[in-house]
Amino acid sequence: MADARTEPTLNQATTETDARRRHDPAVRGFASDNYAGAHPEVLAALALANGGHQTAYGEDDYTAHLQDVVRGHFGPSAETFPVFNGTGSNVVALQAMVDRWGGVICAESAHINTDEGGAPERVGALKLLTVATPDGKLTPELVDRQAFGFDDEHRAMPQVVSITQSTEYGTLYTPGEIRALCAHAHERGMKVHLDGARIANAAAALGVPVREFTTDAGVDVVSFGGTKNGMVFGEAVVVLNPDAARAVKRLRKLSLQLASKMRFVSVQLEALLAGDLWLRSARHSNAMARRLADGVSAVDGVEIIYPVQANGVFARLPHDVAVRLQKQFRFYFWDEAASEVRWMCSFDTTEEDIDAFVGAITEEMAREA
Amino acid sequence: MADARTEPTLNQATTETDARRRHDPAVRGFASDNYAGAHPEVLAALALANGGHQTAYGEDDYTAHLQDVVRGHFGPSAETFPVFNGTGSNVVALQAMVDRWGGVICAESAHINTDEGGAPERVGALKLLTVATPDGKLTPELVDRQAFGFDDEHRAMPQVVSITQSTEYGTLYTPGEIRALCAHAHERGMKVHLDGARIANAAAALGVPVREFTTDAGVDVVSFGGTKNGMVFGEAVVVLNPDAARAVKRLRKLSLQLASKMRFVSVQLEALLAGDLWLRSARHSNAMARRLADGVSAVDGVEIIYPVQANGVFARLPHDVAVRLQKQFRFYFWDEAASEVRWMCSFDTTEEDIDAFVGAITEEMAREA
Amino acid sequence: MADARTEPTLNQATTETDARRRHDPAVRGFASDNYAGAHPEVLAALALANGGHQTAYGEDDYTAHLQDVVRGHFGPSAETFPVFNGTGSNVVALQAMVDRWGGVICAESAHINTDEGGAPERVGALKLLTVATPDGKLTPELVDRQAFGFDDEHRAMPQVVSITQSTEYGTLYTPGEIRALCAHAHERGMKVHLDGARIANAAAALGVPVREFTTDAGVDVVSFGGTKNGMVFGEAVVVLNPDAARAVKRLRKLSLQLASKMRFVSVQLEALLAGDLWLRSARHSNAMARRLADGVSAVDGVEIIYPVQANGVFARLPHDVAVRLQKQFRFYFWDEAASEVRWMCSFDTTEEDIDAFVGAITEEMAREA
Amino acid sequence: MADARTEPTLNQATTETDARRRHDPAVRGFASDNYAGAHPEVLAALALANGGHQTAYGEDDYTAHLQDVVRGHFGPSAETFPVFNGTGSNVVALQAMVDRWGGVICAESAHINTDEGGAPERVGALKLLTVATPDGKLTPELVDRQAFGFDDEHRAMPQVVSITQSTEYGTLYTPGEIRALCAHAHERGMKVHLDGARIANAAAALGVPVREFTTDAGVDVVSFGGTKNGMVFGEAVVVLNPDAARAVKRLRKLSLQLASKMRFVSVQLEALLAGDLWLRSARHSNAMARRLADGVSAVDGVEIIYPVQANGVFARLPHDVAVRLQKQFRFYFWDEAASEVRWMCSFDTTEEDIDAFVGAITEEMAREA
Repeated sequence: MADARTEPTLNQATTETDARRRHDPAVRGFASDNYAGAHPEVLAALALANGGHQTAYGEDDYTAHLQDVVRGHFGPSAETFPVFNGTGSNVVALQAMVDRWGGVICAESAHINTDEGGAPERVGALKLLTVATPDGKLTPELVDRQAFGFDDEHRAMPQVVSITQSTEYGTLYTPGEIRALCAHAHERGMKVHLDGARIANAAAALGVPVREFTTDAGVDVVSFGGTKNGMVFGEAVVVLNPDAARAVKRLRKLSLQLASKMRFVSVQLEALLAGDLWLRSARHSNAMARRLADGVSAVDGVEIIYPVQANGVFARLPHDVAVRLQKQFRFYFWDEAASEVRWMCSFDTTEEDIDAFVGAITEEMAREA
Repeated sequence: MADARTEPTLNQATTETDARRRHDPAVRGFASDNYAGAHPEVLAALALANGGHQTAYGEDDYTAHLQDVVRGHFGPSAETFPVFNGTGSNVVALQAMVDRWGGVICAESAHINTDEGGAPERVGALKLLTVATPDGKLTPELVDRQAFGFDDEHRAMPQVVSITQSTEYGTLYTPGEIRALCAHAHERGMKVHLDGARIANAAAALGVPVREFTTDAGVDVVSFGGTKNGMVFGEAVVVLNPDAARAVKRLRKLSLQLASKMRFVSVQLEALLAGDLWLRSARHSNAMARRLADGVSAVDGVEIIYPVQANGVFARLPHDVAVRLQKQFRFYFWDEAASEVRWMCSFDTTEEDIDAFVGAITEEMAREA
Repeated sequence: MADARTEPTLNQATTETDARRRHDPAVRGFASDNYAGAHPEVLAALALANGGHQTAYGEDDYTAHLQDVVRGHFGPSAETFPVFNGTGSNVVALQAMVDRWGGVICAESAHINTDEGGAPERVGALKLLTVATPDGKLTPELVDRQAFGFDDEHRAMPQVVSITQSTEYGTLYTPGEIRALCAHAHERGMKVHLDGARIANAAAALGVPVREFTTDAGVDVVSFGGTKNGMVFGEAVVVLNPDAARAVKRLRKLSLQLASKMRFVSVQLEALLAGDLWLRSARHSNAMARRLADGVSAVDGVEIIYPVQANGVFARLPHDVAVRLQKQFRFYFWDEAASEVRWMCSFDTTEEDIDAFVGAITEEMAREA
Repeated sequence: MADARTEPTLNQATTETDARRRHDPAVRGFASDNYAGAHPEVLAALALANGGHQTAYGEDDYTAHLQDVVRGHFGPSAETFPVFNGTGSNVVALQAMVDRWGGVICAESAHINTDEGGAPERVGALKLLTVATPDGKLTPELVDRQAFGFDDEHRAMPQVVSITQSTEYGTLYTPGEIRALCAHAHERGMKVHLDGARIANAAAALGVPVREFTTDAGVDVVSFGGTKNGMVFGEAVVVLNPDAARAVKRLRKLSLQLASKMRFVSVQLEALLAGDLWLRSARHSNAMARRLADGVSAVDGVEIIYPVQANGVFARLPHDVAVRLQKQFRFYFWDEAASEVRWMCSFDTTEEDIDAFVGAITEEMAREA
């Protein structure tokens, strides 16, 4: 006989949910890796962590274990703070790294500068010190355009260099490039933050352990991305250098990023990172982007404008072709005036999706000729 | 033969997750309704909404439908903005309701004042105008202690009255009390915000449609709580009076509360609200608190200090009894110096849990005598 | 013959200013010490510091010398940062003392809570942890109502106790009371800030060197008030404990409080503090308040509601008497509902002013009888 | 016999100030117009406004009259809000013009971006949307690099275009250029702010009434500069279009920019603007810059790098020449790596100063040859 405490009869008579399916799960596109849903293994992990009571706000067994899982990847000093979303991860991390008077050097194209609604400035009270780049990547020379005036009270003090890996343009830093940037920053008394919203794609593409281009390269704090790589929601601030960040827990709380039922964030991260799900999914989306790039490279009039190194393809093609394609497949203009588009692949993009899309591009370009 | 696009073979060979169960789902306590997990119907809803691509950031089919579901409860003008957590819901709502120079009148015991790490002030740049209350409830008279100086630039302009229903002390406002507060606030040019982290418990306890003590009583904006009532995560800002809140979407984004895969928040809210799951769960947790209160009322030396009107029981009992009980059941001191404790019931609390707890209390009190 | 560089002919033909006198310098009242103008010696100091070029933003000879002048009063470790106004002084000082997650314990009646438009919260991103007091004064016991939860991320971390000397009610802390408060705060890891908008009145009233109730009592940082005591404008953040404040210069700049022509703030402070002008003026305004209090104590029906220890008199008298008096003399209701008024004396209040006012009060009360 | 109330014997026995002269008023340089002191007529105005009591915080007779004086220049709808300093003026003005979610388009070289310590972001919670410019001047085309995404919640909403006149590089917008920019901005729903820290130099150089390039050109709000043009301290937010700014008084207060003894700011502004002092001084400093530019244009090896249109001269010359010159005359490198310097003239720069400086430049360059 079942013990009543082990098998509580929940207060419902039905196993059916009151919610209903309202979408066609067969429809996919190339608009964003955020358009994809969750990986089935991630959903399974949620179920696994469910039931019974666990201490709220991060004192649960899943969050505790996650520390070890992440240390397996980033080294023994890594400390992991699960949060809700990518903007939250960046804003919490950067606040923990700078003083009230600090500034953050980043590429003009950085997500923190272009796509976070001013949250770093408004919530984090940060000053972003931006630099134009050709491909979304900073270099020591580019950093130096803003790395001055450290003692000048009239200027936000440059305290952090923030890079994105893989970048907003789908390009990659090599481990050596990051090492050089970190050395440069550290020599000038600055710390390095890595926005890893797509860090799995970078690790998969580089084919090296993630710590080779983070901890071992000198990165101080990572925003580790999970949502775009198949989680329902969730990211993590991973502090690699304990001296580089202060009071992350407090800043997470006061920046609205503290999940009460944190076990559900942590177990998803564990599902990604305990085995190789994170790499499997990233390798797959990278391969799909590669397949797409290869496919369109054969099509005259479609120009790929950045190296395809992760899961995104940026292309220039005739504006009306793009518009006609958008009627069949979801994707965005990146710079509509320049007729540039972005095609993103995700963990659930299939080879058939790519081939159908390449077919459509070929066909629409042919109509154009 | 299955169409490849309809049934994508995801990039995994296994249906097993890499995460492992690390807790005993038979263990429950009375520490917090946030210690409970998710209701099985909520998890089922997540699976239902999974698969395929849906527009990110709230332009999905689930969020669209949620509007109708919520309007069914709050009336045809309600607009719903899913967010991550309760602090987020409150800070987004209040920012949307006040100007840069505005102030928010609330009880000293309000969650926004005591438990949000200063987020309303720091993220929302709000001034809280607090009032001491006997039981966590504002009255028109108490509001007036801060409702002055509307034209005085030296003072934050009182623009919002924020109440919590059910309150942080487990007490309830009647619909009439809220109606009176709203009339009072509106007459003075102020709007009314209701922090509904436990609004389901209030609706269940009052036995009236939720709109009777919100929309129809004059409340302008509600923070609708889902997490404590069985969601994995998720709350919603529900704007009842469209004139009372500006730019909620923008404020949600820049306040770090915009979920990219919003379908997963919305479908959980739908699971609660499309049928009666939200009320079923709340009625159950309320009943468990009632059973607990009734149980301990028979125990000499245990004093219940606030009316037990929702799912929380606040009691005073000998300090060492409390400490001994905490070794068997998780719960918190509310005011340790005063030897006051808080016992919370949740949707998965069982009658057996209550009876075992009352038994333990009785036994420990007996040892004391 | 005058050297052209020594006596530049400025680009004007006239010694007449284009501005015109628009007020009657014979009219004074009891509304506020901010209604008074500047002491003639202060104006003379401005002229003295004028002419030629001096490095801007605080690197001038007057600001350098001011350091020594202030150290003469507060001890050799004092560092002085001139600012524009009192709110600026408080907000810069408190930001320098707390972390992004810190809170400031203060009396509910503190100027930083009631009269700064929410600036500490909005500009300083501070959480004020307020305590009701009978007379505007904190005690160790009152501090303890907010001094808890130091490790609780859900709560702003109490890091500073802020007191006002003399208080907003015209009352005084004794040196011993401040010593006890500082010891109490320091034991709990908190620092002490003293809002000295009227610190000169306190020093004059106590009859002790100012360091006896600041540096020697354990106060960490003082907001030193100059404007109310006869300056054109200007206050100073005075850091007594160098370990208690960080980056004041940077915070002053980014908080809009850095004067470009700082010599003109510093020389005014020097004018007050190099000799005894600050005490002369404060003793005089205190004496005038004493004379006023003594005068009205003989009038039946006028009740003095706080001890008159500095330059303010708080009284209760019939509402219509107050209204009639306001037609002859400027002053404010403090709490109109309670028929309580505030009468402030300043450095330029004369005995004749007091006697005329007491006469009018006596007369109006007589009409009332 | 003197009436005691008319001629109060102030509480001092001496007309001597306790402060002492610590600088040589014969020494001037080219470092900054902020290094100069105050114009004697401005000091005379302070004395004029002194004495007696005037309502604090802006309700005085001088601030009231200032409204008319400023309207004489900017037109009948102008509303004037005196503040302490330039950063304050900009931050108050911009907050009043944007919503919590707004952004401000400005040149990368704008003072608000480079020299305000991040105050617009930190205090104003503004997002600056910066554009690289060749000469510090925006054009409609340059504005369009940031004027997009008005409906995109992921991006700060462009709401204001901010220009500086004269610019940080000593260049000028023509009235026609400003008219075109305003028309462009207004068509896109944006307002225009003009940072007029050196607006007098612009008016003097253009030789047109100030309203021709402000009110009549479509500018909505001006930060009117006084300090650099001979005031002890003080600037003003001048709202030209009442629909373009909200709650300036409240924002001034909560941004730490409300002077208690405001009569002393207002009377200085009146001293500048009631007659032609502001233009006399500006014409003079412009003429001195012209004389300097003419002088060095004859010196081989010294290159003037921006058109000299106001009171600043930007030049490139051999680095060691610059360093040797700095031992005789104060001035700053603008970009030391590029060996570029900035020479500023002020209202008290004399022809002899210029001629001596040109002589020294000539001599040092000769040593170099």
